[in-house]
Amino acid sequence: MSGSGWSPGTASRRLAALLDRLGPEGGPRGVYTSVFAESARTDAERAQNADGPLAGALVSVKGLYDVAGEITHAGTRFLEEGPPAGADAPAVARLRAAGAVLTGHTAMSELAYSGLGLNDHHGTADNPAWPGRIPGGSTSGGAASVAAGLADLAIGSDTGGSLRIPAAFCGLTGFKPTQSSVPRDGTVPLSDSLDSLGPMARDVEGCAATWRVMAGRDAPETAPAPLRLRVARNFGFDDLAPEIAEGFEALLGRLRDLGCEIDETPLPLLDDAAAIPPWHLTAVECRAHHETAFREKAETFDPRVHARMARADEVSAVAYRRTLNSRAGFARAFSDALAGQALLLPTVAILPPTPEQLEADEAFNRLNLLALRNTTLGNIADGCSIALPYRRHGTLLSAMLIAGRDADERLLATASGLEPALRAISAGS
Amino acid sequence: MSGSGWSPGTASRRLAALLDRLGPEGGPRGVYTSVFAESARTDAERAQNADGPLAGALVSVKGLYDVAGEITHAGTRFLEEGPPAGADAPAVARLRAAGAVLTGHTAMSELAYSGLGLNDHHGTADNPAWPGRIPGGSTSGGAASVAAGLADLAIGSDTGGSLRIPAAFCGLTGFKPTQSSVPRDGTVPLSDSLDSLGPMARDVEGCAATWRVMAGRDAPETAPAPLRLRVARNFGFDDLAPEIAEGFEALLGRLRDLGCEIDETPLPLLDDAAAIPPWHLTAVECRAHHETAFREKAETFDPRVHARMARADEVSAVAYRRTLNSRAGFARAFSDALAGQALLLPTVAILPPTPEQLEADEAFNRLNLLALRNTTLGNIADGCSIALPYRRHGTLLSAMLIAGRDADERLLATASGLEPALRAISAGS
Repeated sequence: MSGSGWSPGTASRRLAALLDRLGPEGGPRGVYTSVFAESARTDAERAQNADGPLAGALVSVKGLYDVAGEITHAGTRFLEEGPPAGADAPAVARLRAAGAVLTGHTAMSELAYSGLGLNDHHGTADNPAWPGRIPGGSTSGGAASVAAGLADLAIGSDTGGSLRIPAAFCGLTGFKPTQSSVPRDGTVPLSDSLDSLGPMARDVEGCAATWRVMAGRDAPETAPAPLRLRVARNFGFDDLAPEIAEGFEALLGRLRDLGCEIDETPLPLLDDAAAIPPWHLTAVECRAHHETAFREKAETFDPRVHARMARADEVSAVAYRRTLNSRAGFARAFSDALAGQALLLPTVAILPPTPEQLEADEAFNRLNLLALRNTTLGNIADGCSIALPYRRHGTLLSAMLIAGRDADERLLATASGLEPALRAISAGS
Repeated sequence: MSGSGWSPGTASRRLAALLDRLGPEGGPRGVYTSVFAESARTDAERAQNADGPLAGALVSVKGLYDVAGEITHAGTRFLEEGPPAGADAPAVARLRAAGAVLTGHTAMSELAYSGLGLNDHHGTADNPAWPGRIPGGSTSGGAASVAAGLADLAIGSDTGGSLRIPAAFCGLTGFKPTQSSVPRDGTVPLSDSLDSLGPMARDVEGCAATWRVMAGRDAPETAPAPLRLRVARNFGFDDLAPEIAEGFEALLGRLRDLGCEIDETPLPLLDDAAAIPPWHLTAVECRAHHETAFREKAETFDPRVHARMARADEVSAVAYRRTLNSRAGFARAFSDALAGQALLLPTVAILPPTPEQLEADEAFNRLNLLALRNTTLGNIADGCSIALPYRRHGTLLSAMLIAGRDADERLLATASGLEPALRAISAGS
């Protein structure tokens, strides 16, 4: 892959350098929870005979994917009791077969149940792109691994923004594909309705190549038509940090200067998203999978996660099913309404907070919800979405595209087309 | 279609004869709830120019399918207030386009919520194949229409046996296809998880042709391999009426005499079905769709249906989700365990009761559950299933095949292969 920095021939050497950097402790706390030193060496040797865009890439794996011989902890203590996974999750197996070198399991919010990425048990990584700030989550260790140069690529999951928020906070590209495109077997679920598996990378090309392998599909033979951009200000533009609001308008100005047509018609449908409470889906579906631990090992949980799981008891079965039905209707309407278009909006409404700002539960809850607000739209819509980093006056920002179900290739083509403008604005030109 | 009794050229004449028989009252109570006289004449004229196996067939439509210009009552009073449907349901539109003549809406259990087919509001048809007995349900009017010669084919729905039980009671062939094969848009749902749309006919060929049109698919170019038969006596053989038990063994003897190999190994997986309460799915999902009527128009409901809907309140959201998850796991395991095989078992454990036997709620509830027991396995397994009629010493019986998801064509081929043996045993030879 041109410009990617990895290749089959350098895999073993680059892996050895990484293992040296990580050392016996496995590197900075909150990034890797375990390093697959031995199997990674085998992967690197095998990569010599691989071709394709991922051959020789160092890929970190969020701690919720099964990796043969490793314990899938999902950021919890109760799952750390084992046993080790007997086989790779299909998405992991596909990466390995494509010549990727799997470097280790990464830290994450417990059960992926937060967009900020804190984890007292495994530690919370410092943000390599903005020291002193949190990395975002729930794929916190994955984002930190790539941002710190401790992996080329990271795979994670996104239930309400868990790939895109840490990508935004750490200056990476994060791609939440259409849920059904990547098999979820062999991963610890948070929400059956909303979980999507996907990658983080330094650029769109890295995300596209990784996702295609995870999805078991080839790159399209002919370049797909980009989607037209739509900025619908009736969703996602309230309560933005001033730098984010200003930086987004600057980006729009730049795109218009480049001759890009932007449809600024509001999309009334987006007002309906407010009537679909995603916490019904996460709380109920998480509890359904982890009920025994919730009841019998409550003391091992992050109290903030346990409290959100407890809210499942506030939802009747009929109300939960009505949320499922409303969500299915919204997703269909969203795909229909956006045919040929992608929404463009700020990825996250806030800049990465400091750990101190999240000490009080009230602040944590408010900022967690605000961080998740814009990204969650892509999950409720059962669509695809990508977070694209840029800087404005030096401040790290992120713009997000959201499109309907199965528009992944067109979304990626659109995102690639935006990268030069994002680079130019970042350079202050 | 050879031997089917219908053809494009005779459609108008046969329709006119039917309308004469039905008369101004629309025929016997509990069969048709409305007759589409005018649009059926148009259908019959259009059928002259159609070809394909359904051209000119008279098809009755269960009252839960949208038919343009007609009110979709679904056996209820609250839906009878209208408005009329603006368009045909996709499955209905496909039948019309294939040259079928849609004769009318048929009576059904309220919201399809029972396997016996009683409906005080629209009346319960007498069983044309066994006068004095109930027709079974919930596609009660549909079964009676075909059994009485008031339609060539009937389309209905099957959530726990609603095509196969009335087929068994009325001497017809009833096919519950894999749920996802026929689009459910434009129909009134009972259970999103379990509802399947399908046909009843006089034989397997009629069911196959009707289902393929509803599913928008062509007949296979080469005959699919039949499934091997499996009689797993650890499910579905308790509490059989003596005539049913004896008749089933006689059928097995006949099949063996014909050189048919039957695998009689128990299938331990079937014991797990008992841990999946289908009423969680029907009660919760029915309530989610019809909650407003349930609360505000309770007095219009059949009290036995309202009481079952009320049981949704006994299920927590977490318990409901756990049932969904267990069911998905069971369906996967069932398809895997039965690869290449079809279960063969009695369709229903009881002979059709008389209306008097169902007057007490306790007897109704017991017999309703017993009637649904065997058929519901096909719905829980998310599989395909067909009920095949035969007689033994003159008593009307029914044998059922159940196979895994998407095994529909192989199941139909298997069923066709059994028809000669069923005819021979019926003839007492």
